[in-house]
Amino acid sequence: MTQTPSATHDTIRAVQWRGDHLCLLDQRLLPAEERWIECRDTAQVTAAIRDLAVRGAPAIGIAAAWGVAMAARQQAPLDDALAMLRAARPTAVNLMWALDRMKKRIAAGADAEALLREAQAIQDEDLAANRRMGELGAGLIAPGSGVLTHCNTGSLATAGFGTALGVIRAGVAADRIVRVYAGETRPWLQGARLTMWELVRDGIPAQLIADSAASHLMKSGAVQWVIVGADRIAANGDVANKIGTYQLAIAAKYHGVKLMVVAPSSTIDMATATGEEIEIELRDATELLGIAGRRTVVEGAQAWNPVFDVTPAELIDAIVTERGVIERPSVLAMQAMFGS
Amino acid sequence: MTQTPSATHDTIRAVQWRGDHLCLLDQRLLPAEERWIECRDTAQVTAAIRDLAVRGAPAIGIAAAWGVAMAARQQAPLDDALAMLRAARPTAVNLMWALDRMKKRIAAGADAEALLREAQAIQDEDLAANRRMGELGAGLIAPGSGVLTHCNTGSLATAGFGTALGVIRAGVAADRIVRVYAGETRPWLQGARLTMWELVRDGIPAQLIADSAASHLMKSGAVQWVIVGADRIAANGDVANKIGTYQLAIAAKYHGVKLMVVAPSSTIDMATATGEEIEIELRDATELLGIAGRRTVVEGAQAWNPVFDVTPAELIDAIVTERGVIERPSVLAMQAMFGS
Repeated sequence: MTQTPSATHDTIRAVQWRGDHLCLLDQRLLPAEERWIECRDTAQVTAAIRDLAVRGAPAIGIAAAWGVAMAARQQAPLDDALAMLRAARPTAVNLMWALDRMKKRIAAGADAEALLREAQAIQDEDLAANRRMGELGAGLIAPGSGVLTHCNTGSLATAGFGTALGVIRAGVAADRIVRVYAGETRPWLQGARLTMWELVRDGIPAQLIADSAASHLMKSGAVQWVIVGADRIAANGDVANKIGTYQLAIAAKYHGVKLMVVAPSSTIDMATATGEEIEIELRDATELLGIAGRRTVVEGAQAWNPVFDVTPAELIDAIVTERGVIERPSVLAMQAMFGS
Repeated sequence: MTQTPSATHDTIRAVQWRGDHLCLLDQRLLPAEERWIECRDTAQVTAAIRDLAVRGAPAIGIAAAWGVAMAARQQAPLDDALAMLRAARPTAVNLMWALDRMKKRIAAGADAEALLREAQAIQDEDLAANRRMGELGAGLIAPGSGVLTHCNTGSLATAGFGTALGVIRAGVAADRIVRVYAGETRPWLQGARLTMWELVRDGIPAQLIADSAASHLMKSGAVQWVIVGADRIAANGDVANKIGTYQLAIAAKYHGVKLMVVAPSSTIDMATATGEEIEIELRDATELLGIAGRRTVVEGAQAWNPVFDVTPAELIDAIVTERGVIERPSVLAMQAMFGS
């Protein structure tokens, strides 16, 4: 540790509005370098989103909201700003949600000051939701527990505090969690590169493991909960999340370890009946054929590289959102909390 | 493919005696470079074993046997040669087994020619055992099947053909296996670096996957068998093997995919009652904290890096050795085939 962390293990804010410009912590360079990108117009915010300097669905949405407010402040054409940001990552649901919210305010005649307040509100609400999820999730964990997480769901991916990693922050602060493990999360190594950086920075002792060591870890009795985020949650409680989540869920069930999914209610998609309907994105094989720009696999080799997988609801012990907790998710329980 | 593979998909021999010296394919450089090391005295063979230019328990034993025969041929002191080779990798069981076999021949008065024949016999017997296991294992697999393997258990790790990878070679040649997947096997990437190299070289179409994508793959129905090697097999059929094997075994059971363990009978340790007695080696955390010499994880981070895990017999559908197949391993079945 190179600094004294706060008692709540919560010192990182990767998206910061500085009165007239937006500062983004460049996640592509972590942990080797902590470099901030200063965005002074909407085009620069768009580039930061498109080029993955900022990642994590909530963080992308917040950055885009500031990009719109910035355009209004600079008296730039707002339709152009909205279109430019929307095209930065066309499949990001949170990006569209944040831009739609800004667009509604523009349509209602909001001025630059009002749009700046709206962007701030989006950011503040995300942080508040994460704090609430942290409290709810930590409440499910018995004192003295160990937990395993996957990918990065922390301050870097949100306004701050994080979703699954927020529960871990809250659980550690409340002395309920006493052992933290993070899977390295191949192929992008978000766990190794980003989650471990957050944990070290915020003074939470943790151990990195190979993704394939999770079952051996569970057998040892060191972990009582696996805690992960979600990219989309279907109406029956099936969860789409980073590749490897499903394998952890199966291993957890085999060992009697519990599985908690932590995500804001905006992740719930009641229009999707089950996880079977969720299309899984296949990414380029090159992500597996080399590491850090260096080819590690023989020329001519092929790879199969799905980015997400679907964990069926029957393997999930609790879904935690800012609206509340659903234990052992079912269509009825999901409908009761999130139905229209 | 850059060359025409044989019909049996079996062209690689990484340990080759050339009349007066031993050639070893340097596995540390694969797949980037195919460089052969020429060992012209026992000290050079010892260095190749110690420095991991040759890896895989059978391949190490064979190289050591040639190292002893070479010393005899050069009229070097044989006790010194045995001691030097024995110290190269003090915990390698196959190394000790091969050296003990050479030592017995020396004690019986064997001359250099006889010792060269003994080394050749050790090599030939390993290849024959692998071919026999390939035949037995492939016989268990229904035509049209897909398989997933882990780590490297192929020609590089043996006299040739391989154990688990030998079953895959035989199964592909017999048209029983039509889809092959290999897990990359973090942290050392033996699957990505070595197994994919063998498969491409020998003309077997295959897909590399992240270790954590195995369950998603199984759910798709693409694989019917997981086929792995073993480092040690206990008297009740519990198997110690590369980290991640246990997780694959759990996932296989969940999906109704079968698990086959392929290993020569010298891997069976009837003196170890169950896998619980097998101590799991923890290796240095740095293997997880960087990749290819480049630090990927923040300074101050810790890692937990077990190299092996134990798969309980109840998750194993078949243990294949050159002596025969044990389906659904039990103490009684193991005793009947391997008991003294």
